[in-house]
Amino acid sequence: MTTEVLSGKGLASLIREQAQDEARSLGSDGTRPTLAVVVATEDESTLWYVRSIERSAERAGIGCRIVDLGHDASEQALASVLADLSTEPTVHGIILQTPLPAAVRADRLVGHIAPEKDIDGANPLSLGRLAVGQPAFAPATARAVVELLDHFEIPVAGRNITVVGRSAVVGKPLSLLLLERDATVTICHSKSGPLERHTRAADVVVVAAGRTGLLKGSDVSPEAVVIDVGTNVLPDGSLVGDVDEASVTGVAAGLSPVPGGVGSVTTALLLLHTTEAARQQSPAALLTASTSRI
Amino acid sequence: MTTEVLSGKGLASLIREQAQDEARSLGSDGTRPTLAVVVATEDESTLWYVRSIERSAERAGIGCRIVDLGHDASEQALASVLADLSTEPTVHGIILQTPLPAAVRADRLVGHIAPEKDIDGANPLSLGRLAVGQPAFAPATARAVVELLDHFEIPVAGRNITVVGRSAVVGKPLSLLLLERDATVTICHSKSGPLERHTRAADVVVVAAGRTGLLKGSDVSPEAVVIDVGTNVLPDGSLVGDVDEASVTGVAAGLSPVPGGVGSVTTALLLLHTTEAARQQSPAALLTASTSRI
Repeated sequence: MTTEVLSGKGLASLIREQAQDEARSLGSDGTRPTLAVVVATEDESTLWYVRSIERSAERAGIGCRIVDLGHDASEQALASVLADLSTEPTVHGIILQTPLPAAVRADRLVGHIAPEKDIDGANPLSLGRLAVGQPAFAPATARAVVELLDHFEIPVAGRNITVVGRSAVVGKPLSLLLLERDATVTICHSKSGPLERHTRAADVVVVAAGRTGLLKGSDVSPEAVVIDVGTNVLPDGSLVGDVDEASVTGVAAGLSPVPGGVGSVTTALLLLHTTEAARQQSPAALLTASTSRI
Repeated sequence: MTTEVLSGKGLASLIREQAQDEARSLGSDGTRPTLAVVVATEDESTLWYVRSIERSAERAGIGCRIVDLGHDASEQALASVLADLSTEPTVHGIILQTPLPAAVRADRLVGHIAPEKDIDGANPLSLGRLAVGQPAFAPATARAVVELLDHFEIPVAGRNITVVGRSAVVGKPLSLLLLERDATVTICHSKSGPLERHTRAADVVVVAAGRTGLLKGSDVSPEAVVIDVGTNVLPDGSLVGDVDEASVTGVAAGLSPVPGGVGSVTTALLLLHTTEAARQQSPAALLTASTSRI
Protein backbone atom coordinates (compact mmCIF):
# COMPACT_ATOMS: atom_id res chain seq x y z
CA MET A 1 0.00 0.00 0.00
CA THR A 2 1.35 3.40 -0.95
CA THR A 3 0.82 5.82 1.88
CA GLU A 4 -0.25 9.25 0.68
CA VAL A 5 1.44 12.05 2.60
CA LEU A 6 -1.21 14.50 3.79
CA SER A 7 0.85 17.66 3.94
CA GLY A 8 -0.61 20.72 5.63
CA LYS A 9 1.33 23.21 3.52
CA GLY A 10 -1.11 23.73 0.65
CA LEU A 11 -4.10 23.99 2.97
CA ALA A 12 -2.29 26.37 5.32
CA SER A 13 -1.49 28.58 2.38
CA LEU A 14 -5.14 28.59 1.22
CA ILE A 15 -6.33 29.49 4.72
CA ARG A 16 -3.75 32.29 5.02
CA GLU A 17 -4.97 33.69 1.69
CA GLN A 18 -8.55 33.55 2.96
CA ALA A 19 -7.50 35.40 6.13
CA GLN A 20 -5.65 37.98 4.02
CA ASP A 21 -8.69 38.56 1.78
CA GLU A 22 -10.88 38.91 4.82
CA ALA A 23 -8.41 41.33 6.46
CA ARG A 24 -8.40 43.42 3.27
CA SER A 25 -12.19 43.47 3.17
CA LEU A 26 -12.39 44.45 6.85
CA GLY A 27 -9.72 47.10 6.24
CA SER A 28 -11.87 48.76 3.59
CA ASP A 29 -14.49 49.14 6.35
CA GLY A 30 -11.91 50.70 8.65
CA THR A 31 -11.20 47.67 10.84
CA ARG A 32 -7.71 46.22 11.16
CA PRO A 33 -8.17 42.71 12.58
CA THR A 34 -5.76 42.39 15.47
CA LEU A 35 -4.51 39.50 17.53
CA ALA A 36 -2.98 39.82 20.99
CA VAL A 37 -0.61 37.10 22.21
CA VAL A 38 0.00 37.12 25.94
CA VAL A 39 3.38 35.63 26.82
CA ALA A 40 5.03 34.90 30.18
CA THR A 41 8.02 32.70 29.44
CA GLU A 42 11.66 32.87 28.44
CA ASP A 43 11.47 29.56 26.60
CA GLU A 44 13.29 30.16 23.33
CA SER A 45 11.24 27.84 21.12
CA THR A 46 8.01 29.38 22.40
CA LEU A 47 9.26 32.90 21.74
CA TRP A 48 10.36 31.81 18.28
CA TYR A 49 6.88 30.39 17.63
CA VAL A 50 5.19 33.57 18.80
CA ARG A 51 7.40 35.67 16.52
CA SER A 52 6.49 33.37 13.63
CA ILE A 53 2.78 34.01 14.32
CA GLU A 54 3.54 37.73 14.35
CA ARG A 55 5.31 37.53 10.97
CA SER A 56 2.48 35.47 9.42
CA ALA A 57 -0.09 37.89 10.79
CA GLU A 58 1.71 40.91 9.40
CA ARG A 59 2.06 39.29 5.99
CA ALA A 60 -1.73 38.72 5.99
CA GLY A 61 -2.46 42.31 6.98
CA ILE A 62 -3.45 41.31 10.52
CA GLY A 63 -2.15 43.25 13.48
CA CYS A 64 -0.31 41.26 16.15
CA ARG A 65 0.39 42.66 19.59
CA ILE A 66 2.75 40.57 21.73
CA VAL A 67 2.15 41.34 25.39
CA ASP A 68 5.17 39.91 27.24
CA LEU A 69 4.74 39.97 31.02
CA GLY A 70 8.01 38.18 31.70
CA HIS A 71 8.67 34.73 33.08
CA ASP A 72 7.83 35.73 36.66
CA ALA A 73 4.41 37.24 35.90
CA SER A 74 1.80 36.69 38.61
CA GLU A 75 -1.59 35.10 37.97
CA GLN A 76 -3.20 38.39 39.01
CA ALA A 77 -1.18 40.36 36.44
CA LEU A 78 -2.02 37.89 33.68
CA ALA A 79 -5.72 37.88 34.61
CA SER A 80 -5.80 41.64 34.57
CA VAL A 81 -4.13 41.84 31.13
CA LEU A 82 -6.55 39.26 29.70
CA ALA A 83 -9.52 41.16 31.12
CA ASP A 84 -8.22 44.46 29.68
CA LEU A 85 -7.63 42.96 26.23
CA SER A 86 -11.11 41.43 26.37
CA THR A 87 -12.68 44.88 26.52
CA GLU A 88 -10.13 46.65 24.29
CA PRO A 89 -12.01 47.46 21.03
CA THR A 90 -8.90 47.41 18.80
CA VAL A 91 -8.08 43.80 19.77
CA HIS A 92 -10.25 41.06 18.22
CA GLY A 93 -8.48 37.85 19.15
CA ILE A 94 -6.56 36.78 22.25
CA ILE A 95 -4.14 33.90 22.76
CA LEU A 96 -2.72 32.99 26.15
CA GLN A 97 0.55 31.33 25.15
CA THR A 98 1.83 28.38 27.16
CA PRO A 99 4.08 27.57 29.00
CA LEU A 100 3.19 29.87 31.87
CA PRO A 101 5.04 30.44 35.15
CA ALA A 102 4.81 27.41 37.45
CA ALA A 103 2.79 29.28 40.10
CA VAL A 104 0.13 30.27 37.58
CA ARG A 105 -2.95 28.15 36.89
CA ALA A 106 -3.81 28.42 33.22
CA ASP A 107 -7.20 26.76 33.75
CA ARG A 108 -8.30 29.64 35.95
CA LEU A 109 -6.88 32.31 33.65
CA VAL A 110 -8.59 31.27 30.42
CA GLY A 111 -11.97 32.22 31.90
CA HIS A 112 -10.81 35.85 31.61
CA ILE A 113 -10.65 35.67 27.81
CA ALA A 114 -13.90 37.04 26.37
CA PRO A 115 -15.56 34.19 24.42
CA GLU A 116 -15.95 36.36 21.30
CA LYS A 117 -12.16 36.93 21.29
CA ASP A 118 -11.23 33.39 22.35
CA ILE A 119 -9.82 32.46 18.95
CA ASP A 120 -7.95 29.40 20.27
CA GLY A 121 -10.95 28.03 22.16
CA ALA A 122 -9.24 28.12 25.55
CA ASN A 123 -12.13 29.37 27.70
CA PRO A 124 -14.25 26.44 28.99
CA LEU A 125 -17.31 28.37 27.84
CA SER A 126 -16.07 28.02 24.24
CA LEU A 127 -15.80 24.26 24.70
CA GLY A 128 -19.25 24.12 26.27
CA ARG A 129 -20.74 26.11 23.42
CA LEU A 130 -19.11 23.76 20.91
CA ALA A 131 -20.66 20.85 22.81
CA VAL A 132 -24.17 22.24 22.57
CA GLY A 133 -23.76 23.40 18.97
CA GLN A 134 -23.64 27.13 19.70
CA PRO A 135 -21.25 29.36 17.75
CA ALA A 136 -17.78 29.31 19.32
CA PHE A 137 -14.15 29.13 18.28
CA ALA A 138 -12.73 25.63 18.51
CA PRO A 139 -9.11 25.24 19.56
CA ALA A 140 -7.22 25.85 16.31
CA THR A 141 -5.46 22.46 16.42
CA ALA A 142 -8.78 20.61 16.69
CA ARG A 143 -10.24 22.54 13.78
CA ALA A 144 -7.02 22.00 11.80
CA VAL A 145 -7.58 18.24 11.89
CA VAL A 146 -11.12 18.59 10.52
CA GLU A 147 -10.00 21.06 7.83
CA LEU A 148 -7.18 18.72 6.79
CA LEU A 149 -9.59 15.79 6.44
CA ASP A 150 -11.92 17.98 4.36
CA HIS A 151 -9.06 19.29 2.23
CA PHE A 152 -8.04 15.76 1.25
CA GLU A 153 -11.69 14.77 0.83
CA ILE A 154 -11.53 12.08 3.48
CA PRO A 155 -15.11 11.27 4.46
CA VAL A 156 -16.06 11.71 8.10
CA ALA A 157 -19.83 11.20 8.34
CA GLY A 158 -20.73 7.68 9.39
CA ARG A 159 -17.06 6.66 9.62
CA ASN A 160 -15.30 5.30 12.68
CA ILE A 161 -12.74 7.75 13.99
CA THR A 162 -10.50 6.96 16.92
CA VAL A 163 -8.98 9.89 18.77
CA VAL A 164 -5.97 8.97 20.91
CA GLY A 165 -5.70 11.53 23.70
CA ARG A 166 -8.34 13.26 25.82
CA SER A 167 -6.89 16.73 26.35
CA ALA A 168 -9.06 19.85 26.57
CA VAL A 169 -6.97 21.34 23.75
CA VAL A 170 -7.18 18.56 21.16
CA GLY A 171 -8.84 15.26 22.07
CA LYS A 172 -12.09 16.51 23.59
CA PRO A 173 -12.85 19.46 21.27
CA LEU A 174 -11.86 17.41 18.23
CA SER A 175 -14.25 14.66 19.31
CA LEU A 176 -17.03 17.23 19.58
CA LEU A 177 -16.26 18.62 16.11
CA LEU A 178 -16.22 15.12 14.62
CA LEU A 179 -19.51 14.19 16.32
CA GLU A 180 -21.03 17.35 14.88
CA ARG A 181 -19.91 16.02 11.50
CA ASP A 182 -21.68 12.69 12.12
CA ALA A 183 -18.59 10.58 12.76
CA THR A 184 -18.71 7.73 15.26
CA VAL A 185 -15.99 8.70 17.71
CA THR A 186 -13.93 6.55 20.05
CA ILE A 187 -11.74 8.39 22.54
CA CYS A 188 -8.89 6.42 24.05
CA HIS A 189 -5.97 7.38 26.27
CA SER A 190 -3.18 6.12 28.50
CA LYS A 191 -5.55 3.92 30.54
CA SER A 192 -7.19 2.29 27.50
CA GLY A 193 -4.97 -0.77 27.33
CA PRO A 194 -3.45 -2.01 24.05
CA LEU A 195 -3.94 0.74 21.49
CA GLU A 196 -4.53 -1.59 18.56
CA ARG A 197 -7.83 -2.74 20.06
CA HIS A 198 -9.17 0.77 19.55
CA THR A 199 -7.34 1.83 16.41
CA ARG A 200 -7.38 -1.22 14.12
CA ALA A 201 -11.08 -0.91 13.34
CA ALA A 202 -10.91 2.84 12.72
CA ASP A 203 -11.21 4.48 9.31
CA VAL A 204 -9.33 7.49 10.66
CA VAL A 205 -6.93 7.56 13.61
CA VAL A 206 -5.96 10.90 15.13
CA VAL A 207 -3.07 10.73 17.60
CA ALA A 208 -2.64 13.55 20.09
CA ALA A 209 -1.11 11.95 23.13
CA GLY A 210 2.38 13.43 23.31
CA ARG A 211 4.27 10.11 23.24
CA THR A 212 6.94 9.51 20.63
CA GLY A 213 6.43 6.35 18.57
CA LEU A 214 3.08 5.60 20.20
CA LEU A 215 1.19 4.51 17.06
CA LYS A 216 2.81 1.75 15.00
CA GLY A 217 1.96 0.21 11.65
CA SER A 218 0.56 -2.88 13.35
CA ASP A 219 -1.99 -0.66 15.12
CA VAL A 220 -3.79 0.50 11.99
CA SER A 221 -5.79 -1.09 9.19
CA PRO A 222 -4.57 -0.82 5.60
CA GLU A 223 -7.35 1.54 4.56
CA ALA A 224 -6.88 3.85 7.50
CA VAL A 225 -5.90 7.49 7.41
CA VAL A 226 -3.60 8.59 10.23
CA ILE A 227 -3.37 12.18 11.44
CA ASP A 228 -0.44 12.87 13.74
CA VAL A 229 -1.05 15.76 16.14
CA GLY A 230 1.73 14.88 18.60
CA THR A 231 4.42 17.44 19.30
CA ASN A 232 7.47 16.06 21.03
CA VAL A 233 10.78 17.86 21.13
CA LEU A 234 13.75 15.49 21.07
CA PRO A 235 16.93 16.21 23.07
CA ASP A 236 18.58 17.52 19.87
CA GLY A 237 15.78 20.09 19.56
CA SER A 238 14.03 18.47 16.63
CA LEU A 239 10.26 18.07 16.53
CA VAL A 240 8.59 14.66 16.12
CA GLY A 241 5.00 13.46 16.42
CA ASP A 242 3.38 10.48 18.13
CA VAL A 243 3.40 8.24 15.06
CA ASP A 244 6.14 5.75 14.24
CA GLU A 245 6.33 6.93 10.64
CA ALA A 246 8.65 4.16 9.47
CA SER A 247 6.21 1.37 10.33
CA VAL A 248 2.99 3.24 9.47
CA THR A 249 4.28 4.21 6.04
CA GLY A 250 3.37 1.43 3.63
CA VAL A 251 0.48 0.28 5.83
CA ALA A 252 -1.91 3.24 6.19
CA ALA A 253 -3.65 4.78 3.17
CA GLY A 254 -2.65 8.26 4.26
CA LEU A 255 -0.50 9.93 6.90
CA SER A 256 -0.36 13.54 7.99
CA PRO A 257 3.15 13.81 9.43
CA VAL A 258 4.86 15.90 12.10
CA PRO A 259 6.35 18.24 11.12
CA GLY A 260 4.61 19.18 7.89
CA GLY A 261 1.03 18.31 8.80
CA VAL A 262 -1.49 20.05 11.04
CA GLY A 263 1.02 22.49 12.58
CA SER A 264 1.03 25.10 9.83
CA VAL A 265 -2.73 24.70 9.38
CA THR A 266 -3.19 25.50 13.06
CA THR A 267 -1.22 28.74 12.80
CA ALA A 268 -3.11 29.74 9.66
CA LEU A 269 -6.41 29.09 11.44
CA LEU A 270 -5.42 31.39 14.30
CA LEU A 271 -5.19 34.15 11.68
CA LEU A 272 -8.49 33.18 10.07
CA HIS A 273 -10.18 33.04 13.48
CA THR A 274 -8.86 36.54 14.18
CA THR A 275 -10.51 37.87 11.03
CA GLU A 276 -13.71 35.95 11.83
CA ALA A 277 -13.71 37.47 15.32
CA ALA A 278 -13.06 40.93 13.89
CA ARG A 279 -15.95 40.48 11.46
CA GLN A 280 -18.31 39.49 14.28
CA GLN A 281 -17.14 42.44 16.38
CA SER A 282 -17.25 44.97 13.53
CA PRO A 283 -19.65 47.90 13.92
CA ALA A 284 -21.76 46.59 11.01
CA ALA A 285 -22.16 43.13 12.59
CA LEU A 286 -22.92 44.54 16.02
CA LEU A 287 -25.53 46.85 14.49
CA THR A 288 -27.23 43.91 12.77
CA ALA A 289 -27.15 41.90 15.98
CA SER A 290 -28.72 44.68 18.03
CA THR A 291 -31.35 45.34 15.35
CA SER A 292 -32.31 41.68 15.13
CA ARG A 293 -32.94 41.61 18.86
CA ILE A 294 -35.72 44.15 18.63
CA MET B 1 -27.04 -16.06 31.20
CA THR B 2 -29.11 -14.61 34.01
CA THR B 3 -29.49 -10.90 33.55
CA GLU B 4 -29.20 -8.98 36.79
CA VAL B 5 -31.72 -6.16 37.04
CA LEU B 6 -29.91 -2.98 38.04
CA SER B 7 -32.70 -1.17 39.82
CA GLY B 8 -32.23 2.47 40.73
CA LYS B 9 -34.51 2.37 43.75
CA GLY B 10 -32.03 1.44 46.46
CA LEU B 11 -29.44 3.91 45.20
CA ALA B 12 -32.01 6.70 44.85
CA SER B 13 -33.06 6.12 48.42
CA LEU B 14 -29.43 6.29 49.63
CA ILE B 15 -28.86 9.54 47.74
CA ARG B 16 -32.06 11.07 49.11
CA GLU B 17 -30.90 10.17 52.64
CA GLN B 18 -27.56 11.80 51.93
CA ALA B 19 -29.36 14.94 50.70
CA GLN B 20 -31.56 14.92 53.78
CA ASP B 21 -28.57 14.62 56.15
CA GLU B 22 -26.85 17.43 54.32
CA ALA B 23 -30.01 19.59 54.46
CA ARG B 24 -30.22 18.98 58.20
CA SER B 25 -26.58 19.91 58.67
CA LEU B 26 -27.01 23.08 56.61
CA GLY B 27 -30.19 23.86 58.55
CA SER B 28 -28.27 23.86 61.82
CA ASP B 29 -26.11 26.60 60.28
CA GLY B 30 -29.22 28.56 59.35
CA THR B 31 -29.36 27.68 55.65
CA ARG B 32 -32.40 25.97 54.13
CA PRO B 33 -31.20 24.54 50.78
CA THR B 34 -33.72 25.61 48.19
CA LEU B 35 -34.40 24.62 44.62
CA ALA B 36 -36.31 26.72 42.10
CA VAL B 37 -38.02 24.98 39.18
CA VAL B 38 -38.98 27.31 36.34
CA VAL B 39 -41.95 25.97 34.38
CA ALA B 40 -43.70 27.26 31.25
CA THR B 41 -45.93 24.46 30.06
CA GLU B 42 -49.38 22.99 30.58
CA ASP B 43 -48.19 19.49 29.78
CA GLU B 44 -49.76 17.31 32.45
CA SER B 45 -46.99 14.71 32.76
CA THR B 46 -44.39 17.47 33.13
CA LEU B 47 -46.41 19.21 35.82
CA TRP B 48 -46.86 15.87 37.58
CA TYR B 49 -43.08 15.33 37.46
CA VAL B 50 -42.38 18.79 38.85
CA ARG B 51 -44.80 18.22 41.72
CA SER B 52 -43.07 14.90 42.44
CA ILE B 53 -39.73 16.75 42.70
CA GLU B 54 -41.39 19.20 45.08
CA ARG B 55 -42.69 16.40 47.28
CA SER B 56 -39.30 14.63 47.35
CA ALA B 57 -37.58 17.90 48.17
CA GLU B 58 -39.94 18.66 51.03
CA ARG B 59 -39.52 15.18 52.47
CA ALA B 60 -35.75 15.73 52.44
CA GLY B 61 -36.03 19.12 54.14
CA ILE B 62 -35.18 21.00 50.95
CA GLY B 63 -37.22 24.01 49.88
CA CYS B 64 -38.76 23.88 46.42
CA ARG B 65 -40.11 26.96 44.68
CA ILE B 66 -42.07 26.28 41.51
CA VAL B 67 -42.05 29.39 39.33
CA ASP B 68 -44.79 28.83 36.75
CA LEU B 69 -44.77 31.46 34.00
CA GLY B 70 -47.55 29.84 32.00
CA HIS B 71 -47.44 28.12 28.63
CA ASP B 72 -47.23 31.38 26.70
CA ALA B 73 -44.26 32.84 28.59
CA SER B 74 -41.88 34.91 26.45
CA GLU B 75 -38.15 34.22 26.20
CA GLN B 76 -37.53 37.63 27.76
CA ALA B 77 -39.72 36.83 30.77
CA LEU B 78 -38.02 33.48 31.28
CA ALA B 79 -34.54 35.02 30.93
CA SER B 80 -35.41 37.67 33.45
CA VAL B 81 -36.72 35.14 35.98
CA LEU B 82 -33.61 32.98 35.59
CA ALA B 83 -31.36 36.01 36.07
CA ASP B 84 -33.29 37.07 39.19
CA LEU B 85 -33.15 33.59 40.72
CA SER B 86 -29.42 33.48 39.93
CA THR B 87 -28.80 36.42 42.26
CA GLU B 88 -31.47 35.56 44.84
CA PRO B 89 -29.54 34.46 47.98
CA THR B 90 -32.30 32.18 49.32
CA VAL B 91 -32.28 30.04 46.13
CA HIS B 92 -29.34 27.64 45.69
CA GLY B 93 -30.32 25.52 42.71
CA ILE B 94 -32.20 26.31 39.49
CA ILE B 95 -33.86 23.99 36.99
CA LEU B 96 -35.35 25.22 33.73
CA GLN B 97 -37.97 22.56 33.06
CA THR B 98 -38.68 21.45 29.49
CA PRO B 99 -40.82 21.53 27.39
CA LEU B 100 -40.81 25.29 26.84
CA PRO B 101 -43.08 27.38 24.60
CA ALA B 102 -42.31 26.81 20.91
CA ALA B 103 -41.10 30.38 20.35
CA VAL B 104 -38.55 30.11 23.15
CA ARG B 105 -34.97 28.96 22.56
CA ALA B 106 -33.85 26.93 25.55
CA ASP B 107 -30.22 26.98 24.37
CA ARG B 108 -30.12 30.75 24.76
CA LEU B 109 -31.93 30.75 28.09
CA VAL B 110 -29.70 28.32 29.96
CA GLY B 111 -26.82 30.82 29.82
CA HIS B 112 -28.82 32.92 32.31
CA ILE B 113 -28.55 30.24 35.01
CA ALA B 114 -25.63 31.09 37.29
CA PRO B 115 -23.12 28.20 37.03
CA GLU B 116 -22.97 27.77 40.83
CA LYS B 117 -26.77 27.21 40.85
CA ASP B 118 -26.88 25.17 37.65
CA ILE B 119 -27.66 21.89 39.42
CA ASP B 120 -28.82 20.14 36.24
CA GLY B 121 -25.76 21.18 34.20
CA ALA B 122 -27.79 23.04 31.57
CA ASN B 123 -25.53 26.09 31.08
CA PRO B 124 -22.88 25.40 28.39
CA LEU B 125 -20.30 26.78 30.82
CA SER B 126 -21.06 23.85 33.15
CA LEU B 127 -20.42 21.42 30.29
CA GLY B 128 -17.21 23.23 29.35
CA ARG B 129 -15.99 23.13 32.94
CA LEU B 130 -16.73 19.40 33.11
CA ALA B 131 -14.69 18.99 29.92
CA VAL B 132 -11.62 20.71 31.36
CA GLY B 133 -11.98 19.05 34.77
CA GLN B 134 -13.10 22.15 36.66
CA PRO B 135 -15.77 21.85 39.37
CA ALA B 136 -19.25 21.96 37.82
CA PHE B 137 -22.58 20.21 38.13
CA ALA B 138 -23.10 17.52 35.50
CA PRO B 139 -26.60 17.02 34.13
CA ALA B 140 -28.24 14.84 36.77
CA THR B 141 -29.08 12.06 34.30
CA ALA B 142 -25.45 11.77 33.18
CA ARG B 143 -24.24 11.59 36.78
CA ALA B 144 -27.01 9.08 37.58
CA VAL B 145 -25.52 6.61 35.09
CA VAL B 146 -22.08 6.86 36.68
CA GLU B 147 -23.51 6.56 40.21
CA LEU B 148 -25.53 3.50 39.17
CA LEU B 149 -22.43 1.80 37.73
CA ASP B 150 -20.54 2.57 40.95
CA HIS B 151 -23.40 1.37 43.13
CA PHE B 152 -23.40 -2.04 41.43
CA GLU B 153 -19.59 -2.10 41.45
CA ILE B 154 -19.34 -2.27 37.68
CA PRO B 155 -15.79 -1.30 36.77
CA VAL B 156 -15.35 1.65 34.43
CA ALA B 157 -11.61 2.39 34.28
CA GLY B 158 -9.95 0.83 31.26
CA ARG B 159 -13.26 -0.68 30.06
CA ASN B 160 -14.91 -0.08 26.71
CA ILE B 161 -18.11 1.88 27.10
CA THR B 162 -20.37 2.69 24.17
CA VAL B 163 -22.75 5.59 24.57
CA VAL B 164 -25.62 5.59 22.08
CA GLY B 165 -26.80 9.18 21.67
CA ARG B 166 -24.92 12.46 21.49
CA SER B 167 -27.24 14.91 23.25
CA ALA B 168 -25.98 17.82 25.34
CA VAL B 169 -28.07 16.48 28.22
CA VAL B 170 -26.90 12.86 28.35
CA GLY B 171 -24.56 11.55 25.65
CA LYS B 172 -21.91 14.26 25.66
CA PRO B 173 -21.71 15.01 29.40
CA LEU B 174 -21.84 11.31 30.23
CA SER B 175 -18.94 10.67 27.83
CA LEU B 176 -16.95 13.39 29.60
CA LEU B 177 -17.69 11.88 33.02
CA LEU B 178 -16.71 8.40 31.83
CA LEU B 179 -13.47 9.70 30.26
CA GLU B 180 -12.66 11.38 33.57
CA ARG B 181 -13.06 7.92 35.12
CA ASP B 182 -10.58 6.41 32.63
CA ALA B 183 -13.09 4.55 30.46
CA THR B 184 -12.50 4.22 26.72
CA VAL B 185 -15.60 5.84 25.28
CA THR B 186 -17.26 5.33 21.89
CA ILE B 187 -20.08 7.72 21.04
CA CYS B 188 -22.47 6.60 18.34
CA HIS B 189 -25.74 7.99 17.05
CA SER B 190 -28.34 7.87 14.29
CA LYS B 191 -25.69 8.25 11.55
CA SER B 192 -23.40 5.52 12.88
CA GLY B 193 -24.76 2.67 10.79
CA PRO B 194 -25.59 -0.75 12.27
CA LEU B 195 -25.55 -0.36 16.04
CA GLU B 196 -24.11 -3.82 16.74
CA ARG B 197 -20.79 -2.79 15.20
CA HIS B 198 -20.34 -0.30 18.00
CA THR B 199 -22.06 -2.09 20.87
CA ARG B 200 -21.03 -5.75 20.58
CA ALA B 201 -17.46 -5.10 21.73
CA ALA B 202 -18.50 -2.90 24.64
CA ASP B 203 -18.30 -3.91 28.30
CA VAL B 204 -21.00 -1.36 29.08
CA VAL B 205 -23.62 0.04 26.70
CA VAL B 206 -25.55 3.15 27.66
CA VAL B 207 -28.53 3.92 25.43
CA ALA B 208 -29.90 7.46 25.41
CA ALA B 209 -31.28 7.93 21.93
CA GLY B 210 -35.04 8.22 22.44
CA ARG B 211 -36.01 5.33 20.14
CA THR B 212 -38.17 2.50 21.42
CA GLY B 213 -36.68 -0.96 20.92
CA LEU B 214 -33.41 0.43 19.54
CA LEU B 215 -31.01 -1.93 21.34
CA LYS B 216 -31.67 -5.66 20.90
CA GLY B 217 -30.14 -8.73 22.47
CA SER B 218 -28.17 -9.44 19.28
CA ASP B 219 -26.45 -6.05 19.67
CA VAL B 220 -24.71 -6.84 22.94
CA SER B 221 -22.10 -9.30 24.17
CA PRO B 222 -23.01 -11.78 26.94
CA GLU B 223 -20.79 -10.09 29.51
CA ALA B 224 -22.13 -6.63 28.82
CA VAL B 225 -23.97 -4.37 31.17
CA VAL B 226 -26.74 -2.31 29.56
CA ILE B 227 -28.00 0.96 31.01
CA ASP B 228 -31.22 2.23 29.48
CA VAL B 229 -31.61 6.01 29.64
CA GLY B 230 -34.29 6.32 26.98
CA THR B 231 -37.61 7.89 27.88
CA ASN B 232 -40.36 7.28 25.38
CA VAL B 233 -44.01 7.78 26.17
CA LEU B 234 -46.28 5.30 24.38
CA PRO B 235 -49.73 6.31 23.08
CA ASP B 236 -51.31 4.72 26.16
CA GLY B 237 -49.24 7.05 28.36
CA SER B 238 -46.84 4.40 29.64
CA LEU B 239 -43.09 5.02 29.81
CA VAL B 240 -40.59 2.77 28.02
CA GLY B 241 -36.88 3.02 27.35
CA ASP B 242 -34.72 2.44 24.26
CA VAL B 243 -33.88 -1.18 25.07
CA ASP B 244 -35.82 -4.15 23.79
CA GLU B 245 -35.95 -5.76 27.22
CA ALA B 246 -37.36 -9.07 26.06
CA SER B 247 -34.39 -9.85 23.81
CA VAL B 248 -31.68 -8.26 25.98
CA THR B 249 -32.82 -10.17 29.07
CA GLY B 250 -31.02 -13.50 29.12
CA VAL B 251 -28.16 -12.13 27.01
CA ALA B 252 -26.63 -9.21 28.89
CA ALA B 253 -25.07 -9.67 32.32
CA GLY B 254 -26.99 -6.71 33.70
CA LEU B 255 -29.73 -4.35 32.64
CA SER B 256 -30.90 -1.12 34.18
CA PRO B 257 -34.49 -0.87 32.97
CA VAL B 258 -36.93 1.94 32.19
CA PRO B 259 -38.86 2.58 34.32
CA GLY B 260 -37.10 1.55 37.53
CA GLY B 261 -33.52 2.45 36.60
CA VAL B 262 -31.76 5.80 36.34
CA GLY B 263 -34.94 7.91 36.57
CA SER B 264 -35.35 7.92 40.34
CA VAL B 265 -31.57 8.30 40.76
CA THR B 266 -31.70 11.43 38.58
CA THR B 267 -34.40 13.04 40.73
CA ALA B 268 -32.51 12.16 43.91
CA LEU B 269 -29.34 13.71 42.45
CA LEU B 270 -31.16 16.98 41.76
CA LEU B 271 -31.83 17.14 45.52
CA LEU B 272 -28.25 16.22 46.38
CA HIS B 273 -26.92 18.81 43.91
CA THR B 274 -29.15 21.42 45.58
CA THR B 275 -27.57 20.70 48.96
CA GLU B 276 -24.09 20.69 47.39
CA ALA B 277 -24.83 24.05 45.80
CA ALA B 278 -26.19 25.40 49.09
CA ARG B 279 -23.06 24.19 50.89
CA GLN B 280 -20.82 25.97 48.36
CA GLN B 281 -22.91 29.14 48.63
CA SER B 282 -23.15 29.07 52.43
CA PRO B 283 -21.61 32.03 54.30
CA ALA B 284 -18.95 29.72 55.80
CA ALA B 285 -17.87 28.41 52.37
CA LEU B 286 -17.83 31.86 50.83
CA LEU B 287 -15.74 33.15 53.74
CA THR B 288 -13.20 30.35 53.25
CA ALA B 289 -13.08 31.02 49.51
CA SER B 290 -12.49 34.73 49.96
CA THR B 291 -9.84 34.09 52.63
CA SER B 292 -8.00 31.58 50.45
CA ARG B 293 -7.75 34.19 47.71
CA ILE B 294 -5.66 36.50 49.88
